[in-house]
Amino acid sequence: MDIGFIGLGIMGAPMAGHLQAAGHRIFTKTNRNPVPEALAKAGATACASAAEVAANSDVVITMLPDTPDVEAVLFGPQGLAEGLKPGAIVIDMSSIDPIATQRFAARIKALGCDYVDAPVSGGEVGAKAASVTIMVGADAEVFDRVKPLFDLMGQNITLIGENGAGQIAKVANQIIVALNIEAVAEALVFASKAGADPERVRQALMGGFASSRILEVHGERMVKRRFDPGFRIELHQKDLGLALASARSLGLALPHTASAQQLFSGCVAAGEGGNDHSGMVRALERLAAHELG
Amino acid sequence: MDIGFIGLGIMGAPMAGHLQAAGHRIFTKTNRNPVPEALAKAGATACASAAEVAANSDVVITMLPDTPDVEAVLFGPQGLAEGLKPGAIVIDMSSIDPIATQRFAARIKALGCDYVDAPVSGGEVGAKAASVTIMVGADAEVFDRVKPLFDLMGQNITLIGENGAGQIAKVANQIIVALNIEAVAEALVFASKAGADPERVRQALMGGFASSRILEVHGERMVKRRFDPGFRIELHQKDLGLALASARSLGLALPHTASAQQLFSGCVAAGEGGNDHSGMVRALERLAAHELG
Repeated sequence: MDIGFIGLGIMGAPMAGHLQAAGHRIFTKTNRNPVPEALAKAGATACASAAEVAANSDVVITMLPDTPDVEAVLFGPQGLAEGLKPGAIVIDMSSIDPIATQRFAARIKALGCDYVDAPVSGGEVGAKAASVTIMVGADAEVFDRVKPLFDLMGQNITLIGENGAGQIAKVANQIIVALNIEAVAEALVFASKAGADPERVRQALMGGFASSRILEVHGERMVKRRFDPGFRIELHQKDLGLALASARSLGLALPHTASAQQLFSGCVAAGEGGNDHSGMVRALERLAAHELG
Repeated sequence: MDIGFIGLGIMGAPMAGHLQAAGHRIFTKTNRNPVPEALAKAGATACASAAEVAANSDVVITMLPDTPDVEAVLFGPQGLAEGLKPGAIVIDMSSIDPIATQRFAARIKALGCDYVDAPVSGGEVGAKAASVTIMVGADAEVFDRVKPLFDLMGQNITLIGENGAGQIAKVANQIIVALNIEAVAEALVFASKAGADPERVRQALMGGFASSRILEVHGERMVKRRFDPGFRIELHQKDLGLALASARSLGLALPHTASAQQLFSGCVAAGEGGNDHSGMVRALERLAAHELG
């Protein structure tokens, strides 16, 4: 299949590579950087504009940092919308605003094309291993058509619902991950300051109702003081910003998400925005004048 | 062995039953209620006072609601301390204040006896199935001596550290459980109000970094509206109260624990204190003027 792929960053490049390895032809338009060497060698075509990418592709995938980036690539001058072939499918795999996504989908569909929101979870490691979780918002019939492409890039691929539902699930995921990190951080800082060994406490809690992937992976990072990313605080801050903006426009309160966002801000203020998100523990350590021992 | 057991409630009664079934003799003193029938039939002896229980026992176990209850049974008039044999071991399996526990342990040790704090997690179901998790604070040598008794009552038995460390671990457990419940509740209320099916979102998130026992068990309760306990909000409120009181005396901040406590209070205000703790979702639903559909 001829596939457009815009956004060949640390996530997008290996994902496009998996498609290429399965025999698909990749068309792309890069912004500042050249086409990554491995992709170029395997025959990826660099186009002059997003519109030209669209004109060459049956399916166009975007994997971009934030909502305005996706909007610009879709609807800006020389954007995808100007070149899409009738019946083409746009798949946005970025993590962006669910409500803007519903708007983007409506505009793309008005062109006689289809739209799929399909954000992923699993990071660079998952992108390379083709093991990312993919949360999909799409018409069921369109989902069936693009599912073989998702199978090349990830595992655990779920159709959540109509357009926007994939992004909603991703936001829900980022809320839980941030708040579970905060939970583990409060518990371990408490235990350590009270005089117990935080690693023994962590181990003891792993079998029971407190058990979680976060206690397992990020709890260990906190205890071992390994704050190299992983997933950077400044990126998770962006995701919680999305959650809070959506919540405000929907008219609902997310008190702990708001507070976790502030704790991330405290880390950024301390110059720790590039740390792994498990580094949120340091904000709580500062509130305790105590470091996990 | 001759074992005193004070606190034959919904947790204590089955736990004492397991000891009895293994051939140990049980001595008890009940407050208002008679000795549970099954235990009495199997030969449990009712004593006139806690002191008399202590005078008959090599090991005395307490399983009581709160810190003042344990203090009264240990050190009140006709309390355990008045009757303990030299070298006897007091095992407090209640969930109480870690700092008070350190004080109680010092007073019991001053009598030439030993003290073990060994709170459990796993509820009535775990008590009946002898599968509770036991978090232990004790001298290592004393832990080895009482471990065979723990093996009769639970699984996943961990020596965390010196006296108080068992209670510290239990508090840490209750912090994580409450905050993970809050996290799942925020995420599912958000997803539902944004228009996605919360059950599909829950399923999609189960494989990734958001996965937890709480997402699995309590997330399902939220979606299915099953708020019969389980573990009651008013009990979890007591546990968070312990966490916050300890945090204050230790001089550290637990912002989300404090906020979760307030959300539980909102449930109590609505007459829902007897609901399962997963019912915290209703406090967030009220903040969203929206119920999970």
